[in-house]
This record gives sequence, structure tokens and C-alpha cells, in this order.
Amino acid sequence: METTIVLAALKLVGYGLSTIGPGVGIGIACYGCCVATARQPELQGRLFTNFIIGAALAEALGLIGFVLTFIV
Amino acid sequence: METTIVLAALKLVGYGLSTIGPGVGIGIACYGCCVATARQPELQGRLFTNFIIGAALAEALGLIGFVLTFIV
Amino acid sequence: METTIVLAALKLVGYGLSTIGPGVGIGIACYGCCVATARQPELQGRLFTNFIIGAALAEALGLIGFVLTFIV
Amino acid sequence: METTIVLAALKLVGYGLSTIGPGVGIGIACYGCCVATARQPELQGRLFTNFIIGAALAEALGLIGFVLTFIV
Amino acid sequence: METTIVLAALKLVGYGLSTIGPGVGIGIACYGCCVATARQPELQGRLFTNFIIGAALAEALGLIGFVLTFIV
Repeated sequence: METTIVLAALKLVGYGLSTIGPGVGIGIACYGCCVATARQPELQGRLFTNFIIGAALAEALGLIGFVLTFIV
Repeated sequence: METTIVLAALKLVGYGLSTIGPGVGIGIACYGCCVATARQPELQGRLFTNFIIGAALAEALGLIGFVLTFIV
Repeated sequence: METTIVLAALKLVGYGLSTIGPGVGIGIACYGCCVATARQPELQGRLFTNFIIGAALAEALGLIGFVLTFIV
Repeated sequence: METTIVLAALKLVGYGLSTIGPGVGIGIACYGCCVATARQPELQGRLFTNFIIGAALAEALGLIGFVLTFIV
Repeated sequence: METTIVLAALKLVGYGLSTIGPGVGIGIACYGCCVATARQPELQGRLFTNFIIGAALAEALGLIGFVLTFIV
């Protein structure tokens, strides 16, 4: 029982670690998209597509960490 | 009992870790939005939308860490 | 008793961790707001609004960590 | 049994660590791609190819960490 | 037996640590390549070569960490 509880807590530590990178990465991607949209407003659709792709790739890493907390 | 208390503390450590990335990421997103708004004021609506989307994605990672502290 | 003291210490560690990201993030947001205001002084109201929203989102993560130290 | 559970938790910690770099890296790559596309819109195909290659290389490191959680 | 399992988990932690630098480094390399290609499109071949060399050097560090998980 004791071990199970420690496991649950350590799982959360693991998930927390897995959000550091994606969190920062999505922010940087969004920043780049905004600055770029400002320079070339007529490209906003293309720039937004780039941003969503990059953000989805980073977000996936965080969501995998979320899924792992239930299957490990 | 002892284990439960340690669990609660470790949960908080886990949540703390899960806020590092989102916190920084939201800041960077906001920074990009502000700079971009300054360059192209007429795009402020679009730039703000981009920022909110990026910030919401990062924020979600932190909120998941918050929810996890109660369900693990 | 010993465990309670260790708990208090770990809680503080957890809260400390939860302030790293928001602290940095708010600083970056403020920086972006300042730079942007300098470039387009007539937009200072809008830029300040953006900054406050971004800072509030990041700050919320830190405050949740603060609240958690009492309810976990 | 106890050791197995701790193992599972430590595996997740390991995966979490392995996503820090890729997460940030993909974000930076996406940012560079967006800014560059804004400067030279006629090169968007080439720039997007560069971004996908860089992102795939970084993503691979995270996915290897994901695979390792099952084979170690 | 117990020691073997802990070893396997610690191996993964080690690999995770070894991906932080390469992941970020590849992203920065890709970013530099994109920006440079946008400035001097006629140099895209040379710039892409530079990027691949830099990315390969960084990737090698991560792959060495991968190999080490089996030979240590």
C-alpha cells in the first residue's frame, strides 16, 4: 500500500517533468507566429498552420506523459 | 499515515514541476503578442487570438498537473 | 512529529518550484510590454492589458501552488 | 513487487526528462521557420522542409525515451 | 534482482538527461538555418549542409546515450 502511494506521487513528478519542455516550446512557437504575422499579415494563414503543427508536436510529448501516468 | 503525508508533499512537488514550463511559455507568448501588436497595431485582434491559443495550450498542461494532484 | 516537519519542508519546496515558471514568465511578459510601449507609446493601454492578462495567467499557477500548501 | 512499482515510476521520470530538450527544440525550430517564412514568403516550402527535418530529429529523441520505457 | 531493476530505471534517467542538450541544440541549429536561408536564398545548399553537420554532431550525443543504456 505504501509503495503504491509513493508510486502515484512519483508518477505526478514524472508528468510534471514532461511538461517543462512542451510548455516552453509552445510558448516560443506562439511567439514566433505572432511576430511573423506582424511582419507579413497576408501570410497569417500559413504562419498559423506552422505554429499549430509545431505546438501539436510539442503538446503530444506532454500528453504522452499524461497517458503514461495511467498505463505504467 | 506517514506515507499519506509524504504523498501529499510529493504531489505538490509534482504540481510545482508542472508549472515551470507553462509559466515561462505563457510569458514568452505574451511577450511576442505585445511586440507584434506594437509593430502592426491594426492586427491586434488577430495577434491576441494567437496569443490566447498558445497560452491556453500551455496553461492546460499546468491545469492537468493541478487536476492530477486530486485523482492520482 | 518528525514527519510533520519534513512535510512542511517539502511543501515549501513544492511551492518554491511552482514559482519558478510564473516568476520568469511574468518578467518576460513585463519586458515585452515595456519594449512594445516604447515603440508605440500611443498603444500603451492595449499593451498593458495584454501584459496583465498574460501575467495573471502565469500568476494563477503560482497562487494555486500557494493554496495547495494548505489543502493537501 | 515493491521494486517493480518504483521502477515504473522511475521510468516515467526518465521519459519526462527526455522530453525537456525536444519540446523546447521543436518550439525553437518552429519559431525560426515562421520568422523566416515571413521574410521570404516565396521560400516557404524550403523553410518548412528544414523545420520538419529539425523537428523530426528532436522528436525522435523524445520518442526513443517513450520506447525505452517499455524495453528497459 | 532488485538491483537490476533499479539499474534499468536509472539507465533511462541517464538517457533522458542526455537528450536535453541535443534536443535544444538541434532546434537552435534549425532555427539558424531557416533564418539564414531567408536572408540569402542562393546559399540554401551550403546553409543546409552546415545545419545537418551541426544537428548530426548534437544528435550523436543523444544516440551515444541511447547506446550506453545497453552496454553499461
